Amino acid sequence: MKLQDILHKVRAGELSVTEAETAIRGFEDLGFGKVDYARESRTGYPEVIFGQGKTPEQVQAIFVRLHEKHGKVMVTRADRSMYELVREAVPDAVYDEMSRLLTVGSCERRFAGKVAVVSAGTADLPVAEEAARTAEWMGNEVDRIYDVGVAGIDRLLAQRERIREASVVIVVAGMEGALGSVIGGLVRRPVVAVPTSVGYGAHFGGLTPLLSMLTSCAAGVTVVNIDNGFGAAFSASIIQQAILEGAS
Amino acid sequence: MKLQDILHKVRAGELSVTEAETAIRGFEDLGFGKVDYARESRTGYPEVIFGQGKTPEQVQAIFVRLHEKHGKVMVTRADRSMYELVREAVPDAVYDEMSRLLTVGSCERRFAGKVAVVSAGTADLPVAEEAARTAEWMGNEVDRIYDVGVAGIDRLLAQRERIREASVVIVVAGMEGALGSVIGGLVRRPVVAVPTSVGYGAHFGGLTPLLSMLTSCAAGVTVVNIDNGFGAAFSASIIQQAILEGAS
Amino acid sequence: MKLQDILHKVRAGELSVTEAETAIRGFEDLGFGKVDYARESRTGYPEVIFGQGKTPEQVQAIFVRLHEKHGKVMVTRADRSMYELVREAVPDAVYDEMSRLLTVGSCERRFAGKVAVVSAGTADLPVAEEAARTAEWMGNEVDRIYDVGVAGIDRLLAQRERIREASVVIVVAGMEGALGSVIGGLVRRPVVAVPTSVGYGAHFGGLTPLLSMLTSCAAGVTVVNIDNGFGAAFSASIIQQAILEGAS
Amino acid sequence: MKLQDILHKVRAGELSVTEAETAIRGFEDLGFGKVDYARESRTGYPEVIFGQGKTPEQVQAIFVRLHEKHGKVMVTRADRSMYELVREAVPDAVYDEMSRLLTVGSCERRFAGKVAVVSAGTADLPVAEEAARTAEWMGNEVDRIYDVGVAGIDRLLAQRERIREASVVIVVAGMEGALGSVIGGLVRRPVVAVPTSVGYGAHFGGLTPLLSMLTSCAAGVTVVNIDNGFGAAFSASIIQQAILEGAS
Amino acid sequence: MKLQDILHKVRAGELSVTEAETAIRGFEDLGFGKVDYARESRTGYPEVIFGQGKTPEQVQAIFVRLHEKHGKVMVTRADRSMYELVREAVPDAVYDEMSRLLTVGSCERRFAGKVAVVSAGTADLPVAEEAARTAEWMGNEVDRIYDVGVAGIDRLLAQRERIREASVVIVVAGMEGALGSVIGGLVRRPVVAVPTSVGYGAHFGGLTPLLSMLTSCAAGVTVVNIDNGFGAAFSASIIQQAILEGAS
Amino acid sequence: MKLQDILHKVRAGELSVTEAETAIRGFEDLGFGKVDYARESRTGYPEVIFGQGKTPEQVQAIFVRLHEKHGKVMVTRADRSMYELVREAVPDAVYDEMSRLLTVGSCERRFAGKVAVVSAGTADLPVAEEAARTAEWMGNEVDRIYDVGVAGIDRLLAQRERIREASVVIVVAGMEGALGSVIGGLVRRPVVAVPTSVGYGAHFGGLTPLLSMLTSCAAGVTVVNIDNGFGAAFSASIIQQAILEGAS
Amino acid sequence: MKLQDILHKVRAGELSVTEAETAIRGFEDLGFGKVDYARESRTGYPEVIFGQGKTPEQVQAIFVRLHEKHGKVMVTRADRSMYELVREAVPDAVYDEMSRLLTVGSCERRFAGKVAVVSAGTADLPVAEEAARTAEWMGNEVDRIYDVGVAGIDRLLAQRERIREASVVIVVAGMEGALGSVIGGLVRRPVVAVPTSVGYGAHFGGLTPLLSMLTSCAAGVTVVNIDNGFGAAFSASIIQQAILEGAS
Amino acid sequence: MKLQDILHKVRAGELSVTEAETAIRGFEDLGFGKVDYARESRTGYPEVIFGQGKTPEQVQAIFVRLHEKHGKVMVTRADRSMYELVREAVPDAVYDEMSRLLTVGSCERRFAGKVAVVSAGTADLPVAEEAARTAEWMGNEVDRIYDVGVAGIDRLLAQRERIREASVVIVVAGMEGALGSVIGGLVRRPVVAVPTSVGYGAHFGGLTPLLSMLTSCAAGVTVVNIDNGFGAAFSASIIQQAILEGAS
Repeated sequence: MKLQDILHKVRAGELSVTEAETAIRGFEDLGFGKVDYARESRTGYPEVIFGQGKTPEQVQAIFVRLHEKHGKVMVTRADRSMYELVREAVPDAVYDEMSRLLTVGSCERRFAGKVAVVSAGTADLPVAEEAARTAEWMGNEVDRIYDVGVAGIDRLLAQRERIREASVVIVVAGMEGALGSVIGGLVRRPVVAVPTSVGYGAHFGGLTPLLSMLTSCAAGVTVVNIDNGFGAAFSASIIQQAILEGAS
Repeated sequence: MKLQDILHKVRAGELSVTEAETAIRGFEDLGFGKVDYARESRTGYPEVIFGQGKTPEQVQAIFVRLHEKHGKVMVTRADRSMYELVREAVPDAVYDEMSRLLTVGSCERRFAGKVAVVSAGTADLPVAEEAARTAEWMGNEVDRIYDVGVAGIDRLLAQRERIREASVVIVVAGMEGALGSVIGGLVRRPVVAVPTSVGYGAHFGGLTPLLSMLTSCAAGVTVVNIDNGFGAAFSASIIQQAILEGAS
Repeated sequence: MKLQDILHKVRAGELSVTEAETAIRGFEDLGFGKVDYARESRTGYPEVIFGQGKTPEQVQAIFVRLHEKHGKVMVTRADRSMYELVREAVPDAVYDEMSRLLTVGSCERRFAGKVAVVSAGTADLPVAEEAARTAEWMGNEVDRIYDVGVAGIDRLLAQRERIREASVVIVVAGMEGALGSVIGGLVRRPVVAVPTSVGYGAHFGGLTPLLSMLTSCAAGVTVVNIDNGFGAAFSASIIQQAILEGAS
Repeated sequence: MKLQDILHKVRAGELSVTEAETAIRGFEDLGFGKVDYARESRTGYPEVIFGQGKTPEQVQAIFVRLHEKHGKVMVTRADRSMYELVREAVPDAVYDEMSRLLTVGSCERRFAGKVAVVSAGTADLPVAEEAARTAEWMGNEVDRIYDVGVAGIDRLLAQRERIREASVVIVVAGMEGALGSVIGGLVRRPVVAVPTSVGYGAHFGGLTPLLSMLTSCAAGVTVVNIDNGFGAAFSASIIQQAILEGAS
Repeated sequence: MKLQDILHKVRAGELSVTEAETAIRGFEDLGFGKVDYARESRTGYPEVIFGQGKTPEQVQAIFVRLHEKHGKVMVTRADRSMYELVREAVPDAVYDEMSRLLTVGSCERRFAGKVAVVSAGTADLPVAEEAARTAEWMGNEVDRIYDVGVAGIDRLLAQRERIREASVVIVVAGMEGALGSVIGGLVRRPVVAVPTSVGYGAHFGGLTPLLSMLTSCAAGVTVVNIDNGFGAAFSASIIQQAILEGAS
Repeated sequence: MKLQDILHKVRAGELSVTEAETAIRGFEDLGFGKVDYARESRTGYPEVIFGQGKTPEQVQAIFVRLHEKHGKVMVTRADRSMYELVREAVPDAVYDEMSRLLTVGSCERRFAGKVAVVSAGTADLPVAEEAARTAEWMGNEVDRIYDVGVAGIDRLLAQRERIREASVVIVVAGMEGALGSVIGGLVRRPVVAVPTSVGYGAHFGGLTPLLSMLTSCAAGVTVVNIDNGFGAAFSASIIQQAILEGAS
Repeated sequence: MKLQDILHKVRAGELSVTEAETAIRGFEDLGFGKVDYARESRTGYPEVIFGQGKTPEQVQAIFVRLHEKHGKVMVTRADRSMYELVREAVPDAVYDEMSRLLTVGSCERRFAGKVAVVSAGTADLPVAEEAARTAEWMGNEVDRIYDVGVAGIDRLLAQRERIREASVVIVVAGMEGALGSVIGGLVRRPVVAVPTSVGYGAHFGGLTPLLSMLTSCAAGVTVVNIDNGFGAAFSASIIQQAILEGAS
Repeated sequence: MKLQDILHKVRAGELSVTEAETAIRGFEDLGFGKVDYARESRTGYPEVIFGQGKTPEQVQAIFVRLHEKHGKVMVTRADRSMYELVREAVPDAVYDEMSRLLTVGSCERRFAGKVAVVSAGTADLPVAEEAARTAEWMGNEVDRIYDVGVAGIDRLLAQRERIREASVVIVVAGMEGALGSVIGGLVRRPVVAVPTSVGYGAHFGGLTPLLSMLTSCAAGVTVVNIDNGFGAAFSASIIQQAILEGAS
């Protein structure tokens, strides 16, 4: 809707002043937060809700508005109480216990290449699934290659070709995080490494694989925050987007 | 050179056993290290020498062999004594005091898009230049946008369009590293953030901007090690490569 | 009450020895703690109760005594069980779940200038509200500017003038805390930055924004403890007081 | 100079294109950095040069331009080699070995109130002097109260009245930094605490007094980075400025 | 009981082999632990049970045996479930909720001098009481001086003489722990400082007052572990013992 | 089963394709994880399940398959809910509450020498038992020597000969972990030290004994992760294996 | 000199105003520091100069004044340049290279009991000597028991009786600092533990023995800062003083 | 020499009292240290001198005595000045610049199996050589396998059989230390991992590979201190010794 149209409608009484303000500024102010409607046109993706630290009521309010506007919504780090409240308003909403993603709809599949999500152990699954499902929601085909930690290197090497076929590789690993370095040395494509909080003792809640991935002896590996499967998938998607669009 | 050819030449006495071994295995064993000749065919780039912790004699020995093989060599974190010794053997070698890169030759320019190297302050220049010169050596056109720290946000916003034109953005910042988040929110392309050791006190040698960039509130930002301009440029180059080649 | 009057009353049997002792020393000893009645005359503000680590019984006892003396009381980091017990004795007491402030009465509005409380995200609200409500309780007009994190810099810049109108600016931010630096570069007035424990992984419970704010590249930013909205508001108030009184 | 005047002069050939660009944009681009000429009109103070990490040549270049523009310049964390080079171009430049400040000229004295700089021990002098001389350069009257650490509390209490007379108090302390809490409890005015790197062992280069000042049991104390005497003086000056101007 | 007597009794069948073994070796092996009966004769105090990490059954078993032997027992860091089980066997056992001490009996009062236990805030009481009650159990007269934190220095100075009268001073403080330094500068007697876990944010569970007390600018202050009221009281008691016995 | 046999059976329809795939590759892919059947033939021990972070359903599924294959299974860091589910399928499964080991069957006793498990205090028992029971399950004779911390050095020295008789010594200690150094100086055999999370305050969840054991002044001590009794027992077993087999 | 006498002398012109001020206030203000002349009468010991961070000129100035006043002076952490300058003014000054103590004169021997200084290794000697020589300077008889680290426990046990004869024991140890715990379990007298910076890697400059000593499983051990031999000796001396004077 | 013989010789005047004391106690007291002559008979190896922190004079004195006694000596972390002084007294002494080992003589080759020393990069050579040369000095055959970091996994896998032939494997790696995990999963023999200080930034002087190796997902890996090549070789030798002697 163009600015002139909005103003005409206000004059005609077809649009309230508040509605008009939201349409012009591109976001709506809910008091406790500002819902950004213009993000999809600016960046290609609608705003994603970071659930942690928000009340279920806040999540519901933002969810409903984004759903009305875009028809698709994603909440990360959601819990069951958020889901309960959201589905009262949006019955199609889906909650995945493992990845803690609460979604409705999704972006259509749009990229030619695949994103590989490679994980070290079974306990890394929640983060790996956060990455995989986020990537799918953002329009990527995803190849899941799980439980191939470096302690059994042959198990990993057996997947070498499959990993090399991806356009971007997301590596999810807790413990010492060595999988990042080994895969970084195997592929020609960007590797985004996600340390996880899976471990104990000298693992310090993920600090060890985080530091380990940052000091990787393999070039071409970049790192995101501990357990940030979402962030890795987001970065993978914008790399896919850049590949799709070619040199900007 | 194919395996059969190598073996024929060995039988004909045209190739020594050692030369043949190197050719077949793809690397030469110098005792203190193994020079990897096959890397360019595997990954598109010849091996890069990490200078720190090596003696000038070791650097010279590897440099000479890589030069003979590929015609182009790069040493990171080189010091002047390495340069002195290398140029005795390879007079065309060039040493850049600021970035501590020691090079000869370079990859030809090959990508359509640009890599933007954006830095926060004058003291971040050594790292920014390591990134920029590495990217250039690897075949990228580089746009340097320096001294645009967030304390003067208008100075940064004045460069907004220029930054958005790049295919990949490298952000180099010390102090609190806030530049990563701000630029992450401004562009649609992958951002690789490099924390630097520029700062003092609670900066802890770069730990603060490192943590800050990892916990960035902007999605799409991935991080490399403190002062690792080389690593950022390498990642940017393989993203460029993926764009060039399209979906693999 | 002057010392002579007190002593006359003791002699006349109108004041018990204990009451007289409290009046002379300015504080009452409850065994587990000492209630400071003289603070308001010394500093302009009555004693504020730090709730954490105290039993509800202790909080109630101190609350009642301060209420009798000053007619206004504030407890920070209060929980619901403290509230339950306090309102049995002081029915007018008010508890705000989000900011965890338990209060009765307040200082009258006294300053000409405003305190702006600017926060980065919705999850920072509890700390922002602790700051805002403390500032109001201490007699300040407060302008709340919430959810303007740097990942969407335009959303923040849209509030630039409003922020610049404040006499003191309190910045509340978790994640990487970059908002402190950006606002520090936008305003001419003192900025008090409050890092919050909102985040995960490499955020280390608020350590990252704390370090980030301390190493800010913008001058004029000072920092208080993680989640210490109260402390920021207190500092803002004494700056307001200094402005009100002019050069001491 | 107004925009029209600038453009007229360009047309008349009285101003080069580069000079005009600098005048319009408010800063000059030296390649390695951008000199900000507009800062004084925006914030009341010209740009201050952070010397650490800059080459003497870079410092000289920026110093000369700022001197031409404003007639007064300050470099913090300067070393003797910077001074040598600067005074070749600006013979009036003054270098103070202890505080490592390199200056020429200064702002005129403008505030009615005083800034007290209180330090704990003789070894804290370099930081205390950085604070005191910066405050003086920015137009404050400074009262130096040195060597009054809490281990001899009577020595400190003897200065109580003198400290209470200041409009803003800067506390400089290494070791355990307890001076911040004690003074925070003694005064009614804003206290800016500066931890110093003076100490050894469990002092960890200033981390201990930094954490100590942040967790101070006295309200009204805000903190700047380790050894950041400049930052404390800058904050004190803008508080003085706010007092001078009254409610904005 | 002398060795010969024991052996005679074994031969006479008056003592089982196990009882004799315990009597000779000085401790009894319960499988999960060894109860040390000889400690009182060696050190002047019977073994004290560290409750944390032990099961209630283990605590009960050791308690009963020590009670039979010495008539007095102390468990530190006990919880209610330990108390429930112990009093089934030893009905006179006493549990103090605040200090988490579970005791029966006590050493007789034996020292001429007093131990002062000085604490900074009300929330430090559990640790202060662990120190005070341990000291009392070990035969000391204790003077409790609570809630005299340095933020109100006059409140502390008012107790100066009382503190100076003690033979040993235990200082218990959380937050920034400055009380240790201030008292260290006030007295001529040994000061044992106990940092507490009372605080939040940059306090890091007591790390800050621990480091602060270790780097105290006052000489004569030694430090024990965070929240280790018991250890401080134990050290104070052996200093008292040394005073009582004079030079060994 | 040889490859030819497998293929013949597939052709004959006696083996499904999935079964054949598992037999050839040596592991079965359960989607969330890969069960490694070939490990026993490769390393002498079947795969051990790390329970932490797995769901009870996942543990059950892997347990059942390993049980069918090897007749013996071990899960470390198991909880009761895993046990409940596993024994539905494998009624002989045994769960030890203290060590959190869930097992069925065990390796037969095979080594001539003993493994000594020496622990410092009663609270270290869960880790000591994890080590002792793992070592037994792997075929070792174990000598448990518990509660011999260095604070009572005679109690430890009384066990000196018994400790020296072992082929490998596992030392389990929390608090400051000094037992590692003292035993390292007493024996001629390999010592594997396990720091435990038993302690509080400056113990930082086991960091202190971990660092202490790593910097031990006694040579011949190597270290595993905090609370990793399993890892220590595993290392002890392969040393026993090497002794059994002699020089490889 | 009594106050009346001072004032009479001022009136008579026998004392300058500055001299009188110093005599009344008990300290002299040198601008960069305040020399405390009254400390000996207050605490039994004259002020000790902490050399680190002071210029040689500052050390000399304070040294000379204290020497005039008390006839004995001690500087800790002195370097050779301080010594050079001091002996120009005070030729009897003595410098000990190893302990870095610069002294003249000393307190007379006054205590009946001995202070034992026990150290773990040869490299700990500088700290052990700082402790031993400080204790001697303060009037203690010192028994040096060096190089008895726990890796050779018999070497230590051979000294058991000698250690038990001391009134106070100072334990100096680097590496993992286990000596503190072992000696804490051997003696009945107060133990003051000094961690040293002797070590490498996971020793982190003394952090490891510091934490280790704080979490010691032996009661009766208190701790001072890393390398703080002086502080340990000072504490030992005031314990000796308390023993000498009996209950205060 | 038996005790009777010694005493006879003393009586006969053939042995001085000091010589007799040394012979009986097994060590000689040099004042600054105690030289342990009995260690070889106790542990199979003579005392090794830890050079760091000792003066060249101290090293020389101990070296000479051990040489007289055993005919072979090793100093670790020696520097050139120690070598200069030692060879004045022992001309056969040999100094290896890279490993910083100063030796004379060596133990004879005694074990059947080999120790493999595997290192990740060229810069790890000093530590790898410390391990290799120590192992050789202690009587092991050593197989050096250098520069096989995981970034080029094929280079490592090519050495798989060679590594599997060793009785004990020492893994030396800096950067992220992933080599420990990968080799831990490849071999059936004990792996001793040595993190090195080779790296920068988030490597924190070796902390990252240290933590990484401790949290390795491969069982059978134990860890020694950063850069402790000596310790790893010592542990490998006692494992070899255990293999040689069979079950004790």
